[in-house]
Amino acid sequence: MKCKVIKIGGALIEDAGLLNRLCRKFASMTSPFVIVHGGGTFAGQFAERLGIPRKMIDGRRVTDRETLEVTVMVYAGWINKTLVARLQALGVNACGLSGCDLNLVQADRREGQSIDWGYVGDVRLVRMGGLELLLQAGVVPVISPITHDGKGVLLNSNADGIAAAVAETLGMCYDVELIYCFDKKGVLTDVGDEGSVIPCLTPSLYEKYKQSGMIHSGMIPKLDNAFKSVSNGVQAVRLIHPDDLGQPDAGTRIILEKQWMRVEQ
Amino acid sequence: MKCKVIKIGGALIEDAGLLNRLCRKFASMTSPFVIVHGGGTFAGQFAERLGIPRKMIDGRRVTDRETLEVTVMVYAGWINKTLVARLQALGVNACGLSGCDLNLVQADRREGQSIDWGYVGDVRLVRMGGLELLLQAGVVPVISPITHDGKGVLLNSNADGIAAAVAETLGMCYDVELIYCFDKKGVLTDVGDEGSVIPCLTPSLYEKYKQSGMIHSGMIPKLDNAFKSVSNGVQAVRLIHPDDLGQPDAGTRIILEKQWMRVEQ
Repeated sequence: MKCKVIKIGGALIEDAGLLNRLCRKFASMTSPFVIVHGGGTFAGQFAERLGIPRKMIDGRRVTDRETLEVTVMVYAGWINKTLVARLQALGVNACGLSGCDLNLVQADRREGQSIDWGYVGDVRLVRMGGLELLLQAGVVPVISPITHDGKGVLLNSNADGIAAAVAETLGMCYDVELIYCFDKKGVLTDVGDEGSVIPCLTPSLYEKYKQSGMIHSGMIPKLDNAFKSVSNGVQAVRLIHPDDLGQPDAGTRIILEKQWMRVEQ
Repeated sequence: MKCKVIKIGGALIEDAGLLNRLCRKFASMTSPFVIVHGGGTFAGQFAERLGIPRKMIDGRRVTDRETLEVTVMVYAGWINKTLVARLQALGVNACGLSGCDLNLVQADRREGQSIDWGYVGDVRLVRMGGLELLLQAGVVPVISPITHDGKGVLLNSNADGIAAAVAETLGMCYDVELIYCFDKKGVLTDVGDEGSVIPCLTPSLYEKYKQSGMIHSGMIPKLDNAFKSVSNGVQAVRLIHPDDLGQPDAGTRIILEKQWMRVEQ
């Protein structure tokens, strides 16, 4: 049976027009799917209004206790419930979840050698039980990037990583397609030109583009997750613009060398 | 089959020691149960830090757009997920839900004749489907007082009212006990004396106590909900201190006149 795991960035949720189009796309989908959403900029704005100082290391926010509270409130609260209410209004029986709900996603608190990341968690495991219960009942799980350590502590995790881990776990029972929706038409060779989409990206092409500097910064962890997922048995991974959701050949397909040879033959 | 619906105030969640004792009580429960939690003072403190003015009419907060955001963040986000993570750590397979999740609780936006209540909703219906799916799977639903109007708008509802409506709906399939946990040993005739618990309260006794002024202010909507529930078929309703959870005769039992006569005989 087919199942899609669709990661959407938090920023998409802040764009009311785009969110409406996206929700209508979701409402037209027929096979089972899971949504994983990110956080966007709202949590940062909120922390700023509260006077909580922003601490970043290597592009990642350090999550102290106060930042954790804001993050949980914004991601698991406002963003998650806003999205679910919109979907329900369109007849999609969505259920908003964080990693603690149904013990869905457990994470390990990140241990830096000299860096205290605070309440940041790297995904340890995704439990099939809760997901399967909901999918079998025709429910669409909508997962926020808040996880827990299993000992009562909430953690802030990377939504791309959660989407990858959810796709890998569902891959045990379903024919899974993992779709990363973001603000570009796909992985671009020229970031200023939406026509420069790479249709298929293999590990060796990825290396080449990284070395030449065409692929850089925020795309790297995203693509690392994508390649890890295809290596771990996820059937198909794709990066697309949300407006292209449902178009089978849109965006960039992430593919292993051996799959590529099959495509070529 | 028996099922308990347990309403806990938001203030209980802010008391770490009490919350731990409460979660251990929950972990020792054997029959199915549903938790409904309130909001407490955290949302108000938060709104204050953000400089959002507090508007109250008849003891109820008027929920403008900004206040709704804070309320959803605190109730559906921080309080709900903190409670669920604590329960999971004790082996309780909890699932945090708001009214939009699984389309569980729909509410009507309150229409005042001259008052604009903002995003405040009075519960219209509770859907059995989602609750039953979770209870049958051994999951403990943990419900926040955030509901939706079915048209994509989130609303702030009274947690006592949600608990009552959930109990009435479950009453169609289960032998339901509705338990309101609060900071007193029960309904007191003398608010300063924890020994003055009324063991059984009938509608006529309730009238008497109201007229004499012994029962007043915040207890009135709580008890109105309680009496409405026993009238609507909920088997048993009780008001207790959380430390007395599990003790069958603790607190105040809400009872109709005809049940009272059966007890007397």
